[in-house]
Amino acid sequence: MSFADRIRHCNSYDPARAMPLWADGHRIGWLRRDNAEALKRHGKVFEVRRDRAELLAEGSCDKVSRTVDDVVEALVAERRLPKWRNETFDVARRWGEPPIFRLDRGAVPFFGVRAYGVHLNGYRRDGDQYSLWIGRRASNKQIDPGKLDNIVAGGIGNGYGAAATLVKEAEEEAAIPAALIARAAPVGALTYRMETKLGIRDDVMFVYDFEVPDDFTPTNGDGEISGFELMPLAAILERIRTTMDFKFNVNLVILDFAVRHGILRPDDPEYLDVANGLHRPLD
Amino acid sequence: MSFADRIRHCNSYDPARAMPLWADGHRIGWLRRDNAEALKRHGKVFEVRRDRAELLAEGSCDKVSRTVDDVVEALVAERRLPKWRNETFDVARRWGEPPIFRLDRGAVPFFGVRAYGVHLNGYRRDGDQYSLWIGRRASNKQIDPGKLDNIVAGGIGNGYGAAATLVKEAEEEAAIPAALIARAAPVGALTYRMETKLGIRDDVMFVYDFEVPDDFTPTNGDGEISGFELMPLAAILERIRTTMDFKFNVNLVILDFAVRHGILRPDDPEYLDVANGLHRPLD
Repeated sequence: MSFADRIRHCNSYDPARAMPLWADGHRIGWLRRDNAEALKRHGKVFEVRRDRAELLAEGSCDKVSRTVDDVVEALVAERRLPKWRNETFDVARRWGEPPIFRLDRGAVPFFGVRAYGVHLNGYRRDGDQYSLWIGRRASNKQIDPGKLDNIVAGGIGNGYGAAATLVKEAEEEAAIPAALIARAAPVGALTYRMETKLGIRDDVMFVYDFEVPDDFTPTNGDGEISGFELMPLAAILERIRTTMDFKFNVNLVILDFAVRHGILRPDDPEYLDVANGLHRPLD
Repeated sequence: MSFADRIRHCNSYDPARAMPLWADGHRIGWLRRDNAEALKRHGKVFEVRRDRAELLAEGSCDKVSRTVDDVVEALVAERRLPKWRNETFDVARRWGEPPIFRLDRGAVPFFGVRAYGVHLNGYRRDGDQYSLWIGRRASNKQIDPGKLDNIVAGGIGNGYGAAATLVKEAEEEAAIPAALIARAAPVGALTYRMETKLGIRDDVMFVYDFEVPDDFTPTNGDGEISGFELMPLAAILERIRTTMDFKFNVNLVILDFAVRHGILRPDDPEYLDVANGLHRPLD
């Protein structure tokens, strides 16, 4: 067991098992081949060829979104997709550009479109000793129930930016008021591409650091976290190295924290695997 | 002109113009094809085939180093290589492993072996306002004479680790005493692969941050820096975006500083190009 194992786990994507999904002259997703096969029944909306698929729907974002929604509804009926999440993500050519369409969050890995989220390291520091506030995911979460998590994390829904998502999730998940979370600073972006049961996750995590005041204790408001605990970073790192206790992608966020704060150092044999491996090229 | 241009400049490597160099069952370098052609005259030491080259010399690190040195000497005589630098870098399977051989620094890009260096951000902070101590490279430097540089930077010579190199270079280049530089923290590693006149640079930069005390002014001791200036980070970033005033790879180190300290933020259209583009996969 090693730190690099945690990173490899998040980068299980195999190009041989997928084909690119195009829209409007741009590659917008990665379709696993079985999912591409399932799309062939919807040839008016998606043209699936041997080595690529293309979204044929054109028009305004609203119009394309409705057309894709009809396909998603059919896929849910065919049990190709889990039930609706009723939360939509923007699908755009690239980060910051206007969306081509909006997609229900539950369908994002099926199409392998890039998804963006925010993750917050809530830390306390005593000299060289760091601790992190760690949440435990509720037992009814769809993904990684019961596993350990950042103090705040969430997907960036349509129309939201990274900063607005952080403010919203900080309030909902950990009862951190807007005036307090304003002290958090963006510190980078991590990327990975992973095959899951549903398809392919092509994820970007915007990472924020937040020095939590000593007199503040996070409390969950939305039922997604069953409790919070302040843990010494050294113990967290050992647990990351030797167990799968943390949600799959949270391992990466905390390893990045350890690199940026000089806890993992160049004399560690895994240093370059970690410092470099947290950043998969965005193609 | 953009931040991404500075990153692209450092990643000009084109696989079609190079072939892998193998030693001891591992890919240890990238040979540009004209350099590979020149090695054919030294067929007892290097076997050059159509799409790969191999170091044939075997034995102890000292023995292999002497054999490769003889070839380097011949290449210098043939004017394929610049004059000796009389400083050797370790060539190993990977960072931290024992070297297969040592190579004169002047020959590193010819063989395209991975080179490691340290770069130090020497900063001062006043609330949200950061300044960096910036050096100007002496006019007689072989690479990028007269350009702007980090307060301290240097290649990791054979037998040195990253931390020891930092201590040595901090003393020589900026007269920062060991007791003071001990406060610097490693904060990550940046990677790029670049074609130059001499061949291919496959570089890893270990980055350190150091909050410079207000009462400390760097002074150069080894003649490599003609002077130091404290510059506001905002002005530095604008200069990076619009000019080539900084040494090619120093642009990357400062962009990383701006990302880690929340100066460049996710709402910048170049944010992901920068935060992600500073980390080329190590293959």
